[in-house]
Amino acid sequence: MINSFDPAQAHGLDPVIEQLLKRRAKVLGPSYKLFYEKPVHFVRAEGVWMYDSHNTPYLDVYNNVPSVGHCHPHVVEAVSKQMALLNTHTRYLYDTVLTYAEKLIATFPEELANVMFTCTGSESSDLAVRIARCHTGNTGIIVTENAYHGITAAIAEMSPSLGEGVALGSMVRLVPAPDAYRAGDKDVGDAFAESVEAAIADMLRHGIRPAALVTDTIFSSDGVFSDPRGFLVKAVEAVRRAGGLFIADEVQPGFARTGDTFWGFQRHGVVPDLVIMGKPMGNGLPIGGVVAKPELLTRFATTARYFNTFGGNPVSTAAAMAVLEVIEAESLQKNSLVVGEVLRAGLRDLAKEYPVIGDVRGAGLFIGAEFVKDPLTKEPHEELAMHVVNKLREHNVLISASSPLGNVLKIRPPLPFTADNAAYFLDILADVMAELSKTTGVRG
Amino acid sequence: MINSFDPAQAHGLDPVIEQLLKRRAKVLGPSYKLFYEKPVHFVRAEGVWMYDSHNTPYLDVYNNVPSVGHCHPHVVEAVSKQMALLNTHTRYLYDTVLTYAEKLIATFPEELANVMFTCTGSESSDLAVRIARCHTGNTGIIVTENAYHGITAAIAEMSPSLGEGVALGSMVRLVPAPDAYRAGDKDVGDAFAESVEAAIADMLRHGIRPAALVTDTIFSSDGVFSDPRGFLVKAVEAVRRAGGLFIADEVQPGFARTGDTFWGFQRHGVVPDLVIMGKPMGNGLPIGGVVAKPELLTRFATTARYFNTFGGNPVSTAAAMAVLEVIEAESLQKNSLVVGEVLRAGLRDLAKEYPVIGDVRGAGLFIGAEFVKDPLTKEPHEELAMHVVNKLREHNVLISASSPLGNVLKIRPPLPFTADNAAYFLDILADVMAELSKTTGVRG
Repeated sequence: MINSFDPAQAHGLDPVIEQLLKRRAKVLGPSYKLFYEKPVHFVRAEGVWMYDSHNTPYLDVYNNVPSVGHCHPHVVEAVSKQMALLNTHTRYLYDTVLTYAEKLIATFPEELANVMFTCTGSESSDLAVRIARCHTGNTGIIVTENAYHGITAAIAEMSPSLGEGVALGSMVRLVPAPDAYRAGDKDVGDAFAESVEAAIADMLRHGIRPAALVTDTIFSSDGVFSDPRGFLVKAVEAVRRAGGLFIADEVQPGFARTGDTFWGFQRHGVVPDLVIMGKPMGNGLPIGGVVAKPELLTRFATTARYFNTFGGNPVSTAAAMAVLEVIEAESLQKNSLVVGEVLRAGLRDLAKEYPVIGDVRGAGLFIGAEFVKDPLTKEPHEELAMHVVNKLREHNVLISASSPLGNVLKIRPPLPFTADNAAYFLDILADVMAELSKTTGVRG
Repeated sequence: MINSFDPAQAHGLDPVIEQLLKRRAKVLGPSYKLFYEKPVHFVRAEGVWMYDSHNTPYLDVYNNVPSVGHCHPHVVEAVSKQMALLNTHTRYLYDTVLTYAEKLIATFPEELANVMFTCTGSESSDLAVRIARCHTGNTGIIVTENAYHGITAAIAEMSPSLGEGVALGSMVRLVPAPDAYRAGDKDVGDAFAESVEAAIADMLRHGIRPAALVTDTIFSSDGVFSDPRGFLVKAVEAVRRAGGLFIADEVQPGFARTGDTFWGFQRHGVVPDLVIMGKPMGNGLPIGGVVAKPELLTRFATTARYFNTFGGNPVSTAAAMAVLEVIEAESLQKNSLVVGEVLRAGLRDLAKEYPVIGDVRGAGLFIGAEFVKDPLTKEPHEELAMHVVNKLREHNVLISASSPLGNVLKIRPPLPFTADNAAYFLDILADVMAELSKTTGVRG
């Protein structure tokens, strides 16, 4: 895992943290990984700040789940109120789930008129793929080379970023992400569509018909690819020509994060057949969903009984409703647009000074800054990216990294991140770069 | 679906309900099903009572998710407090998840020493099966004929109760549930073990090696089979001899419901290799988990990266902690044992009067009452069971039904159900039976 704590390399940790690590290893077992060379222990959080047990504040420039800010009072109040009133399931009638579904659907193009609720992005991916396979009668799935769509068995086998220990499904094909930084003179959208067409041809040669192209619309785990706008159009046309659907994974880009549009797919001028949602939907309360063109649900509804016990429960939907209300009331989509630009401008200034920052990209408050050994060869510099991530953590600033090698800084703060927060982050990043240029020979 | 609302048969519904149905069909689409001939609309709930929009109370004799009672103040307070303080993920250190994991693990036999958190029972099943396949290197799964273990793609294909529209996996084998009511002179445990052995033999003949036998330890969807105690022992031995594991699905029987033990498997004197948890764990807040023998996690942890974003978050684990505290503080396991006995005794008295109640069984507050056309032939009487379920709903009492045909009343109230609640329920059920004996010729 990128930016993973290695217990074997741990020296001089705080005794409180040592104790927590021991307890954790004993009860949670070996699958649980922590961030950072020196793990962080949090006891409270508010807005864009998290606090450790010494009451030291950390600026959160990473977490997209507490999307409208940690512990936002409007979400806390909505959940507390609903918890005390009613929490049940969708086999009875209640208002919350309908009011929220209506408000959510209103954020989508009109073709996307139905929603089914789940509890996580993984459950949403799993359901969307089941629906796509049921509707098309096909099984083939195309994803990008370092895609991550979730951790159920069916979705893990189409999430190559989980590594070679998790086998890809025999009906899964991988295509390179639309990477403008390394595209050269080639049109990014054309190249992406050609890769998708080649994947379809290979599938058909093996007797597999395509059910869906599934992509994160900002390619979060591939390294954050946002532009040029429209690069999805031809690939989507290609998969539809072959009888497949386009499933937009909005778990990371969705809910106003990309700034200029509410959903990531809207930046590219395409209307997906199915949309997957999760992480930021309830600001941390588990809720996910699949939004669909209604006609795609007909066959699934008549053949496959689907009931998600907690899916759409009153408490999770109350949280999700509060999230939409805060996004509106605090103009967070606009904030994402404006502060995102401030961050990218600052990063580009820094890149002029430090050519190891080979590329700065992204949309709204979802930003990738790619570290390379040489701006000409563009050879990834993952060690430096990890140094930066861990140095920032020492300066009480939280980010992490993305891409197959982990050489792209993933800058993805809660949406109420202000221009002042951005300036603070950029100052500290500049200090870290200056420090690293002395100690590790990063060219200044 | 058993006890499903059929819009085509709906006449004379409350206009408020008509309106909700329309909104629901428009935004949630065709997969969403409601309970009852006349759906119920709830606006609040407390303890074992749910209230509709006319403030009419309904006695809840069905819902196991609000396990310690609807909107229990201790759970509400724990969630509200934690929501305002910190909600994050397990890649940072925080206390709640460890304190809860330790308290949870303490309820298990000492071999079961690790827990991994998910958000739903389905995710727990999916993870447990992934771990079992990874550890054993085998793929075969044995489940009962009407099993339900969840709705992810991988688990739907081993959940035959979803119906023939959902194909079983090619590596899945079905065995009859251990049904003492229809066992005749045969020992139930011997018969169950023989079925499992036959399934293993058939798998091996097809080149499939068994990864696991997976059973709900009270066989909820098969029709509620609880006794004789120990009927799992030989089947578990059989699957282990063949190199497979035993996975106990405790989503329904777990968390003190079966009365005499905290976990359903404990009634049978077996220690599972993996345990699946969900529904009642957080009293409605989405949380699930897999408890495992630590050695089973080693290979999975080194080959498969698994991170569940919301799994084990501070808010869900605070809810789950409060649930364990209420179970202890209010002696709910003992209550389940005592009131369960009262209910079964009352049902058995009623069965003397109405021989169509062919069998009354269960443990603690998980009870099945089986309707048959004739106590000698034991031919299932699903129409009558549906009549009873819907008549009870007209009398503002909530239950539903189980078994392949739906002829078994599923009586499974929140755990604080009192002896008075039981008497009230039995009185109304007696009235309903009397009424039905007049109108439908049920023999009195």
